[in-house]
Amino acid sequence: MNLFDTINKRRSIRRFTEETVPEDVMNKALEMAVLAPNSSNTQTWDFYWVQSGDKKAKLVEACLSQAAARTAAELLVVVAAPKSWQRSQKRLIEWVKSSNAPKPVVMYYEKLIPAMYRWGIFNILGFVRFLIFNLVGLFRPIMRRPATRRDVQEIAIKSAALAAENFVLAMTAQGYATCMMEGFDECRVKRLLKLKCHDRVVMVIGVGKESDKGTWGPRYRLPLSEVVHKV
Amino acid sequence: MNLFDTINKRRSIRRFTEETVPEDVMNKALEMAVLAPNSSNTQTWDFYWVQSGDKKAKLVEACLSQAAARTAAELLVVVAAPKSWQRSQKRLIEWVKSSNAPKPVVMYYEKLIPAMYRWGIFNILGFVRFLIFNLVGLFRPIMRRPATRRDVQEIAIKSAALAAENFVLAMTAQGYATCMMEGFDECRVKRLLKLKCHDRVVMVIGVGKESDKGTWGPRYRLPLSEVVHKV
Repeated sequence: MNLFDTINKRRSIRRFTEETVPEDVMNKALEMAVLAPNSSNTQTWDFYWVQSGDKKAKLVEACLSQAAARTAAELLVVVAAPKSWQRSQKRLIEWVKSSNAPKPVVMYYEKLIPAMYRWGIFNILGFVRFLIFNLVGLFRPIMRRPATRRDVQEIAIKSAALAAENFVLAMTAQGYATCMMEGFDECRVKRLLKLKCHDRVVMVIGVGKESDKGTWGPRYRLPLSEVVHKV
Repeated sequence: MNLFDTINKRRSIRRFTEETVPEDVMNKALEMAVLAPNSSNTQTWDFYWVQSGDKKAKLVEACLSQAAARTAAELLVVVAAPKSWQRSQKRLIEWVKSSNAPKPVVMYYEKLIPAMYRWGIFNILGFVRFLIFNLVGLFRPIMRRPATRRDVQEIAIKSAALAAENFVLAMTAQGYATCMMEGFDECRVKRLLKLKCHDRVVMVIGVGKESDKGTWGPRYRLPLSEVVHKV
């Protein structure tokens, strides 16, 4: 399916039929998700495909039992895992070395990533970075983030959102509907999935075939001229 | 262009040729950007298309003069504007009324959105919400965010990221390359664009035709089995 048509067709569908979603379709969409750009290619994301009936029931409850979760054939929890740069670091270093990357890139993964992503006990490293960045920033341009723990989480959340957008587009292109949900109890979802305390639940995506009660009206967007500023 | 091919083709290109980008191509990609799903359809995003030579030079400097900014034909700054729900609120209410939406939806935009998005002076409302959510949350599932100002920013950042992903895919489908940059001096970018203090710069996107030095090697992603967890 053509990109523009896919983007145009995608709507947040709040009610699904009872039709199931083939595993292949989900896998294809997940493959597309991880091809999204992400911060320094650290891939600090996790995707929990909740399949067990018991866990699904608890997840629906944590999503405040909204129809988009309750009626979904499949539920995917998109998680930002800010410490998981450690999972990819070793392999990223091997990969950049084997692909003859310029030396600074190797250094970047060996030294700079840990220096930027670690926040230290009680966020101490984070505050030290915050001070340094803002002090240096008085005199010359410098990256201001990630400084604190929350900044590192924010960067991971951003990357996970990019992947989630690819996921919903890929579901749309395959003829299935989705609903990105932010209305959930993050503490309960984290407990259910046994996430680490610094992990963040970015969204829960409901997937299925669109029911005729999937939306209640046409789409509305502000005119482009109000959100695009030519300066 | 087919969605899967587009997603597969998109890479972060760090060096562009001197070829310009037609205005139509940019406009089409911006149209696609705002069709992304976003939090409660509040559309808390702004896109600054920096065209003036002087501002562009300053923006490149704020992007630490990296090649992806320096050589870009066009630069787009994606901004999360957490207070701009006020811009869309009135029109969203009119729209839901005119499209015969269920009553709770009207109430949602009239009452709930302001109650959730306002953080009050010194973030006081934010902390009150935080306390209430976490107290109620002891007994039953409840949405935990947005509580504080930073939460409202985070939600806006997430929505803006979804739009940005549509934007880069739409550029790719039209034969142009992009680079999402997070390596910039947020304070200097905010000053340059005269943003409000609570606005957040989500990313700067460089756009142009890919140069043969655009990437230094093949793409690398972790195996899907390490980031997708079936539970």
